[in-house]
Amino acid sequence: MKPVKIGIIGLGTVGCATVNILQTRGAELTARIGRSIIVSHACVRDPSKPRDCDLTGVTLLEDPSELVTHPDIDIVVELMGGTELALELSLKAIAAGKHLVTANKAIIKAIREGLAGNRIHSVAGIINGTGNFILSEMLDEGRAFAEVLGEAQQLGYAEADPTFDVEGIDAAHKLAILASIAFGIPLSFSAVYTEGIGNLTAEDVRNAEKLGYRIKHLGIAEHNSQGVSLRVHPTLIPRSQLLANVHGVMNAVQVQSDAVGESLYYGAGAGGGPTGSAVVADIIDIARSLETRPDQRVALLGIRHDALKEVPLLPIDAIESAYYLRMQATDQPGVMAEVTGILGKMGISIEAIEQTEPMQHDTQATIIMLTHRVIEEHMIKVIRQLEALDTIMGAITLIRVEHFNTRQSA
Amino acid sequence: MKPVKIGIIGLGTVGCATVNILQTRGAELTARIGRSIIVSHACVRDPSKPRDCDLTGVTLLEDPSELVTHPDIDIVVELMGGTELALELSLKAIAAGKHLVTANKAIIKAIREGLAGNRIHSVAGIINGTGNFILSEMLDEGRAFAEVLGEAQQLGYAEADPTFDVEGIDAAHKLAILASIAFGIPLSFSAVYTEGIGNLTAEDVRNAEKLGYRIKHLGIAEHNSQGVSLRVHPTLIPRSQLLANVHGVMNAVQVQSDAVGESLYYGAGAGGGPTGSAVVADIIDIARSLETRPDQRVALLGIRHDALKEVPLLPIDAIESAYYLRMQATDQPGVMAEVTGILGKMGISIEAIEQTEPMQHDTQATIIMLTHRVIEEHMIKVIRQLEALDTIMGAITLIRVEHFNTRQSA
Repeated sequence: MKPVKIGIIGLGTVGCATVNILQTRGAELTARIGRSIIVSHACVRDPSKPRDCDLTGVTLLEDPSELVTHPDIDIVVELMGGTELALELSLKAIAAGKHLVTANKAIIKAIREGLAGNRIHSVAGIINGTGNFILSEMLDEGRAFAEVLGEAQQLGYAEADPTFDVEGIDAAHKLAILASIAFGIPLSFSAVYTEGIGNLTAEDVRNAEKLGYRIKHLGIAEHNSQGVSLRVHPTLIPRSQLLANVHGVMNAVQVQSDAVGESLYYGAGAGGGPTGSAVVADIIDIARSLETRPDQRVALLGIRHDALKEVPLLPIDAIESAYYLRMQATDQPGVMAEVTGILGKMGISIEAIEQTEPMQHDTQATIIMLTHRVIEEHMIKVIRQLEALDTIMGAITLIRVEHFNTRQSA
Repeated sequence: MKPVKIGIIGLGTVGCATVNILQTRGAELTARIGRSIIVSHACVRDPSKPRDCDLTGVTLLEDPSELVTHPDIDIVVELMGGTELALELSLKAIAAGKHLVTANKAIIKAIREGLAGNRIHSVAGIINGTGNFILSEMLDEGRAFAEVLGEAQQLGYAEADPTFDVEGIDAAHKLAILASIAFGIPLSFSAVYTEGIGNLTAEDVRNAEKLGYRIKHLGIAEHNSQGVSLRVHPTLIPRSQLLANVHGVMNAVQVQSDAVGESLYYGAGAGGGPTGSAVVADIIDIARSLETRPDQRVALLGIRHDALKEVPLLPIDAIESAYYLRMQATDQPGVMAEVTGILGKMGISIEAIEQTEPMQHDTQATIIMLTHRVIEEHMIKVIRQLEALDTIMGAITLIRVEHFNTRQSA
């Protein structure tokens, strides 16, 4: 049978990894799908630049418009990154009747297809490797955020401008995509509540550990009867949970769904190999279905575009969560009673509370508290009341706490 | 467009779960694939038996042969279990031009398709929920194997005859399937080395914990330059690893591959919901590809049958592993030197060694040891030599130790 011909736009790390995988795994891939896959064309900005892949037999084109409409090409792989031009070329490729593959994560395929028969309740994950690396180091070595960030930059994990990673913006983008696939809703980056890890202290990391928890920077998408909430923030999770044991730059996404219950997908979060591999998996799926009518192929987001549904997107106020609170109090009798009294009046019950003794020449004590689940709006009201007390000094630190259901019966 | 019509053989737990998912998720599934899926026929042994699913509109047939050849049916779902008759009916359905779905695990789809572009080095997993439940209880409560097994039987996790689960036979079957998908080799149940959990003691579980490890009953398939090894046995793994934190009846499979590196898939190991959900995912894939030429569909094992390759299957002697050893020694000077001397002569280096003091009226001491990696054949020779010593009493307990690579750079 005729080989499937691929045209790649962009031969950076992911593009070259894709070419390498297609070449070194050629025989096995042919065995899998019954026809061979060859990279026939590629388009790069600077053709003279040395590449980490063998381009023998690959026709280099200067004009990406020529590539996306080239009659010899069956599948266009767009790896130039999220610019206006990339979108324009993608639309042009589709208009020219080409199949389109873009950079992707293996995790997405598992949720899009493996859980297709399920109603998904929530998706929660560690979806930014750099942030997780920084938190892992803070935990393991008790180091401060700024110090670890410097090292991550030296190691090349974090960009010179780390905002995108540590403020949770990258994670928010990924969460919007995951939520769209999981719940069949349109993409909505702007609705994601985002909190970075820049304010976390080694003290909070240590306190969490002492209480049997670990702090992770999670993206959480939940679908309840009111609507969908999307949020990225530092989160305390019990240490026995799988997510709490995802270290370094690894990623993991945990899904709660009606039929399967809990499932988790874990893998490298970045890098040419993993991303190139997910691109190749998509190429294989398409190569297999080349004779299929387009309306029956797996849609990019798993659900056909015209069937996406609108659901209310909930503000962060409306979520229900448990909370970790840390506050500085003057070390005088009655403070504890005052604090717990205010929580009690709001109907917020306390799971654990601890007051550390002040140092010899210190008149302040630190109060650490874990609450049970409550609507965030109520929690924030309580915090404002506590901060207004004369006995509480400065701002109160709040970190959300999630207990995912890990032990289940078959 | 015409609906896709399903005929189901067997309406037990999984069959009814499949019917329920297809009914309750009908609208969403239609949105996903552009046409509706209906269960048009079913075949059960006893039509008068009450079922946990709504069979309105489903034509019940008495003769399964009639179902598998029925002209109205597009997809045959065979859920009657692994009998001769099931195989016969499956072949008949294929001969009649039907698409076939059988009971399946979500994990398999992820490996078969998501990692299709990868060369897989190893697959290691907790693939028997009952065995993992028993080990979790032994660990958490320090209870003995026999006692926990009794409880598992009362809870309905373990059959009255638990051999299939605790001897690792069920895990060996699953491992052979995983290895076939991962390495593109024919199924080979008989080549799996199998060791059950019946001989594990609470003492070994406790010792492992003290050394920073946890004992799990793993299925491990490895592909190295010599060939493929397939084995199921209790294994010590570092406590910080994800696999060590898979509790109760949950399953997880960890895959090492060239492009993706490490990835892990976690979910419920049994039950109607999870299995029915995997069946529905397969139905959706087929419904999408109904217009595709059969040779381009995803093969059951991911690779076309005529392209499966033969590789040498290695005996357990040939594997390389680290080891945990526990032995009883007479409490007299020089025993330790004698033991370590024998290991040293064979070039086996020791990672940790510990001798517990004998009780007041006891003249024996327990020696616990962790070795570095060595070919199993050499380890067994050393054990025979140690057991021949006058100072070593009885048989030596051996448990394999695996350190999977969990911390990686992006």
